[in-house]
Amino acid sequence: MNERDIRELRSLIDSQITTIYPSGPKSLTQTIRYVLEAGGKRLRPILTLLSAQTFGTTITRALPAAIAVEILHNFTLVHDDIMDEDSTRHGQPTVHEKWDLGNAILTGDAMLSLALRILQNNGESHDLMTVFTTGLLRVCEGQALDKEFETDKNVSLEDYIQMIDLKTGHLIGLASEMGAIVANADAKTRIAVRDYGRLIGRAFQIQDDLLEIYSDSEIMGKSLKSDIILGKKTFLMIKAREVSSIEIDKAVKQTRENFAKGKQEIQNILNDMGVTRLTQDYIAEIICSANEKIADIPHDMTDILYFSDMITRRNN
Amino acid sequence: MNERDIRELRSLIDSQITTIYPSGPKSLTQTIRYVLEAGGKRLRPILTLLSAQTFGTTITRALPAAIAVEILHNFTLVHDDIMDEDSTRHGQPTVHEKWDLGNAILTGDAMLSLALRILQNNGESHDLMTVFTTGLLRVCEGQALDKEFETDKNVSLEDYIQMIDLKTGHLIGLASEMGAIVANADAKTRIAVRDYGRLIGRAFQIQDDLLEIYSDSEIMGKSLKSDIILGKKTFLMIKAREVSSIEIDKAVKQTRENFAKGKQEIQNILNDMGVTRLTQDYIAEIICSANEKIADIPHDMTDILYFSDMITRRNN
Repeated sequence: MNERDIRELRSLIDSQITTIYPSGPKSLTQTIRYVLEAGGKRLRPILTLLSAQTFGTTITRALPAAIAVEILHNFTLVHDDIMDEDSTRHGQPTVHEKWDLGNAILTGDAMLSLALRILQNNGESHDLMTVFTTGLLRVCEGQALDKEFETDKNVSLEDYIQMIDLKTGHLIGLASEMGAIVANADAKTRIAVRDYGRLIGRAFQIQDDLLEIYSDSEIMGKSLKSDIILGKKTFLMIKAREVSSIEIDKAVKQTRENFAKGKQEIQNILNDMGVTRLTQDYIAEIICSANEKIADIPHDMTDILYFSDMITRRNN
Repeated sequence: MNERDIRELRSLIDSQITTIYPSGPKSLTQTIRYVLEAGGKRLRPILTLLSAQTFGTTITRALPAAIAVEILHNFTLVHDDIMDEDSTRHGQPTVHEKWDLGNAILTGDAMLSLALRILQNNGESHDLMTVFTTGLLRVCEGQALDKEFETDKNVSLEDYIQMIDLKTGHLIGLASEMGAIVANADAKTRIAVRDYGRLIGRAFQIQDDLLEIYSDSEIMGKSLKSDIILGKKTFLMIKAREVSSIEIDKAVKQTRENFAKGKQEIQNILNDMGVTRLTQDYIAEIICSANEKIADIPHDMTDILYFSDMITRRNN
């Protein structure tokens, strides 16, 4: 497994995903194509494919499940962008920004139905559908908690981890588990690789929290302002508030008047407090725990460990 | 079958549907309970139960499918109310009105996942899931066309019928078909009863168009203003435009300044043109065609024909 192999998997996913809805009302076909052609890293479906291959089936056999996972992920992005008032995603206007609110809601709904139909039409197992529909509910619950936390001053680190596990962890756990299900892996393996994915998701979300503070929106390809200004609880913000909530609240307030200045101020505070370093260490620790989850699986786990490395290295 | 039997089925549905999401983030449990406790006529799940019973299975066996159908229907209402900017539903504020936009989007999404999970957890057949997920896509497509038509001056009656068949017909066809699937009816019967449901849905939607013009919002329990003011294409409006678009457009414009006066004006025009009478006749004709669809099924169809009568008689 190397970077070129990953690029090939990504191309395969890109080529398949854009053909899933060739005809229908124009207001849906154009928005769905727009969302699915915008690209993205395709990390979740790549994980599904690597997992399926690891446990003994072909990429081709696992492709419908991988595509369904990626469409589910994109469905959540379209709806979350409305809720979070985000105007940019993958470097282009979000659906509700480019078209309108109604169109964006409907685009998400239709995408979800397409993902479900891919699973159904490929005669996927009852287990796969159960895991998929449960994942959908958990993602909604995670997003609900995320919104609740915006106006809650007393969000503990434990609450936060529970929220990101639902919102991000479950979906990545679903991606790895679905690959194992398609490959008919045994129950113990399925659970191990699911728990691996969930921890990778946890690390991934905390990386996002870090990148949000230290990246430009150009590199991230999405508008970063909203999360900070909305007062989203993140790993770094909660840790910083444990040290001094007055200091960090002042800097967040500053972002509403002068975003660049406020963000610089937040960076300085987090560095001074040692929160940035602590967060980087914590991410490395979680990825390490994720790898431990799959250490006893009697298969060659090289490809999945390569995936962990990709996550470790990511900068967008 | 009589009115009391129907009330009993409705009570059964009401009692079951409100227990489907006992715990989760508060912002979801309270909105979902609010939507599902608001009641409504429960026509779709009643049809599922009647269909299942007609084809030889028990109400208990068909209840999960019926509940899933009703939740699917309510999911579409929550999202459609956002898109159509409706502020009242079943005589109470809509979710986005009482809470907020994000909460309403998420409430719909979570409801959909709950409907899917009910089917999954009851070990329902692959066929049932396929019919359900296809129905979901068709409903989205119907709503997409409905929105497209708002700004399209050249919507023909044929376009309109195609749109309502997707938006309303498919869901009621799904309700009747799911009952037949649960009862293991043969393919020919399934299709006949599905087509019956689709035609009932078509009649139902045109009745809605009629009630919108002739009922108060108190009786309908929803805000009627928006549909007329948004320029929604309805059977009556399209028919009236065939006679004189100038006259009817003037009255629609009037509703934006003085709703009551404009609506009275629309009523007068539709009566004078004979469109009201023609619409009533057309609805009766569709229900007649629906009944013909199931005429050759070798089962006692009394209960389903009773359902047709209920639809014929409805005034809200």
